[in-house]
Amino acid sequence: MNQNKAHSYSDKLPQAMQPDSALAVFGKDQPLQLASGIVLPSFQIAYQTYGALNSNKSNAILICHPLTCDQHVANPHPVTGKPGWWTNLIGPGKIVDTERYFVVCSNVIGGCLGSTGPAAINPQTGKPYALDFPVITISDMVRAQVMLVDRLGIDTLFAVIGGSMGGMQVLQWASAFGERVFSAIIVASGARHSAQNIAFDEIGRQAVMADPDWRAGNYIEAGTSPRKGLAVARMTAHITYLSEAALHRKFGRNLQERSEVTFSFDADFQIESYLRHQGMVFVERFDANSYLYLTRAMNYFDLAAEYGGHLSHAFRRARTLFFVVSFSSDWLFPTRESQIIVHALNLAGAPVSFAELRTDKGHDAFLLNEPMMFSTVNGFLQSAARARGLSIQ
Amino acid sequence: MNQNKAHSYSDKLPQAMQPDSALAVFGKDQPLQLASGIVLPSFQIAYQTYGALNSNKSNAILICHPLTCDQHVANPHPVTGKPGWWTNLIGPGKIVDTERYFVVCSNVIGGCLGSTGPAAINPQTGKPYALDFPVITISDMVRAQVMLVDRLGIDTLFAVIGGSMGGMQVLQWASAFGERVFSAIIVASGARHSAQNIAFDEIGRQAVMADPDWRAGNYIEAGTSPRKGLAVARMTAHITYLSEAALHRKFGRNLQERSEVTFSFDADFQIESYLRHQGMVFVERFDANSYLYLTRAMNYFDLAAEYGGHLSHAFRRARTLFFVVSFSSDWLFPTRESQIIVHALNLAGAPVSFAELRTDKGHDAFLLNEPMMFSTVNGFLQSAARARGLSIQ
Repeated sequence: MNQNKAHSYSDKLPQAMQPDSALAVFGKDQPLQLASGIVLPSFQIAYQTYGALNSNKSNAILICHPLTCDQHVANPHPVTGKPGWWTNLIGPGKIVDTERYFVVCSNVIGGCLGSTGPAAINPQTGKPYALDFPVITISDMVRAQVMLVDRLGIDTLFAVIGGSMGGMQVLQWASAFGERVFSAIIVASGARHSAQNIAFDEIGRQAVMADPDWRAGNYIEAGTSPRKGLAVARMTAHITYLSEAALHRKFGRNLQERSEVTFSFDADFQIESYLRHQGMVFVERFDANSYLYLTRAMNYFDLAAEYGGHLSHAFRRARTLFFVVSFSSDWLFPTRESQIIVHALNLAGAPVSFAELRTDKGHDAFLLNEPMMFSTVNGFLQSAARARGLSIQ
Repeated sequence: MNQNKAHSYSDKLPQAMQPDSALAVFGKDQPLQLASGIVLPSFQIAYQTYGALNSNKSNAILICHPLTCDQHVANPHPVTGKPGWWTNLIGPGKIVDTERYFVVCSNVIGGCLGSTGPAAINPQTGKPYALDFPVITISDMVRAQVMLVDRLGIDTLFAVIGGSMGGMQVLQWASAFGERVFSAIIVASGARHSAQNIAFDEIGRQAVMADPDWRAGNYIEAGTSPRKGLAVARMTAHITYLSEAALHRKFGRNLQERSEVTFSFDADFQIESYLRHQGMVFVERFDANSYLYLTRAMNYFDLAAEYGGHLSHAFRRARTLFFVVSFSSDWLFPTRESQIIVHALNLAGAPVSFAELRTDKGHDAFLLNEPMMFSTVNGFLQSAARARGLSIQ
C-alpha cells in the first residue's frame, strides 16, 4: 500500500477533484438517473463560460466536447498550458463570438477534468470510484448537461455544437430535448459507432487493462499509473484521427534526425517519433479509467436503436435548425455516417443543411484551421441568429 | 531465475528450434551477409516441399509467406492443427498444382517456426538471441532463400509467389535475382511500407515492449511470455487486414450471445469478442520478438530507395513475367501501391499483367476463397507454363 495516497492522487490528477473551473454540484436531492438503471446519488459538473447571457437568455451556446478534450474550449488548458481546443472557432471576434454569445462548455460526466468520473472520490467509500463508477452513455452526459443548463437558468439554447463524440451529444440533445435546442451543429460525427470504431476502442481498452500498473482499475489508490497502456491506446486512436494522405504528406517515410536507418527498434521514422510523443503527452493530462468509460459510451451510442431502429423517429418532434458537416478524408466518421443523419432529418421533415468539406486532414480536420468549415458554420450561425431574432453586431 | 529454462523454452516455442519441417543448415563456411553489415555466422532455414522436381528442374515454385504465416503453406500446422494457410490456392489439383509443380515454402529468417530468429539459440552465448539477434530486412530474407534454393539444386524458379510481406520478397527476388525468376506473382503488396503501415506496426511493437513480461526481450530465458502485449499487437494488425465493409457485414453492432448491452467492459459486441479471440490464439503460435523483427523488416522495405529513388531501375535487367494483383477494399496495401509497381515495370519495359479485384474483404482477401483471384492467377500461371515449355497435364 502506498502511504501517500492523498498526495499521489492530487499529484497525478489535480484537476479531477479540484478543477480550475466553475462547479455545479448536485446533491442527493438531484441525483443523476443513468441509462443503465443505476442512480448516481450526487455528482458535480465542471464548466467554463465565456461572454455574457443576454437579458432574455436567448444567446446561449453549448459546446459539447469530443473524447479527449474537456471544458477548456477557449482558454489555456490548466495542465498543459496550451490554448483551448477550439480557439480556431470560438473566442472574441471568432465565428462563435464570445462578445455576442454566452458560450458554455462542461466536462462530460465520466470525464477527468472536474466532473464526476471514475477518478472522483466515491462518497460511500472515501476512495476513488475506479471501476465502481457506473458505465455511462451519451444520453447520461446530455442529461447531466441539461441539469447544468437548468442551473444556469437557461431554457432554450440558441445552439448546441459538437464534433465527434461532441456531435453524438448534439444529436442526443436534439432528439431528447429538441424543444430546448434552437439550432444544432454536428461536425465529423455519427448517430452510431461502427464495428471498426468499436474495434479500435477495444484495442485501446485492452492496452490499458493489459498494463499491470492499471491494477484492475485501482491505480490511483495504489499510487501507480498505467502510462504505457494508455500511451498505446492514444497512439492507436491517433492514427484514426489522421488520413493516410495526411500521414503521407506530414511524415511519409522520412527519418527522424538521422540519414540512415539504425537497424534497431529506435524511432527511426518521424511517424514513430510523433506517435510516441502523442502517447507520452496524453498520459500527463488524461485519466486511464476515464478513457475506458468515455470510449465505452461512444461504443454504446446508437440513436436509432432507441427509436425502434428508425433514426428519423429520433427527430419527429424536432423544430431545431440542423447543420451537419463531414470531411472527405475522415475515415473514423466517414461522410456516409453524416448522410445517414441528413437522410433521417429529411424523413422527419426537419430543416437541415449539409456540407462535405474536401480536405486530406482526416477526422482531425474539425479541430484544425479549416477555412471552409469556418465559413460554412459562420453562414449557418448568422442565419440561425437572424431567425432567433438576435441582433447582428 | 527460472530453474527449468530448457523445459519452459521448448514448451513455449517447440517449433522454433526443432521444427516439424526439413532443415537446411548453413555452417560457418556459409554465413549470411545481412543488409545491416552484420554477418550471421551460421543459421538454418526450415522449409516444406510439395510435389516433385522434374528432370530439368524447370517446375519449381517458391512461395514467400506473409508476416504471421510460415512454411506450412499446404499442410496442417504443427501447432494449431489447422490447414495450411494457402490451401485455397496450393495443393493437388489446385491452381498451384503440387502434382505438376515442385512447391517450396520456407520460414523466413527472423521467423519462429524453425528458421533462425530471435527465439533461436545464439551459439556464442548458449541462450536465445532475443534482442541480440540482428535486425533483418526483406533482402536478407531473400538472400537466405537464395541459399536454400541453391542447396536444393534449383537454378531458375518457374515462379515466385507471395502476398503482403510475401509480395515484398517476390519484388526483391525479381530485382536482385531476376535472372533466376521466370515468373513472379505479387498479391496485395507494395514496393514500400506507407507511413500509416509503419504507424500501426509501431503500435504493435510498443504494446509488446510495454508488457512487463517481455523482460526487455529476454522473456524466454525468464520463463515468461508477453502474451497481453502481443495480443494487443495482433488485434491492432487484424483490423488493418479487414475492410470497414467486411467488419460491418460480419459484425456490425451485433451483440455477443446477449440481447442487451451489459453496461460493463465485457465483450458485449461480437467484434470485441472476435478480436480478443484473435489475440489469444495468435500468442499460442507466434514469438513476440519475431513479431518485432518481421514488422521492422517490412517498415524498412523501400525498394526504390535501393535504386536511387527510381523503382523502375529495380527491374532494368528483369526478364521475368510479372502478375500484380490488388483488392479494391485493401487499405493496408491499396491498389495505388500495386499501380506504382506496375508503372515502374512498364517504365522498365518488363512484361506485366495487373488485376484489381473487386471485393469487400480487405487485405485478408488474398488468403480467402476469392474465385476471381484463383482464375486470374490460373490464367497467368498457365500462360507462363506454356512460355516455359512445361507440358499441360
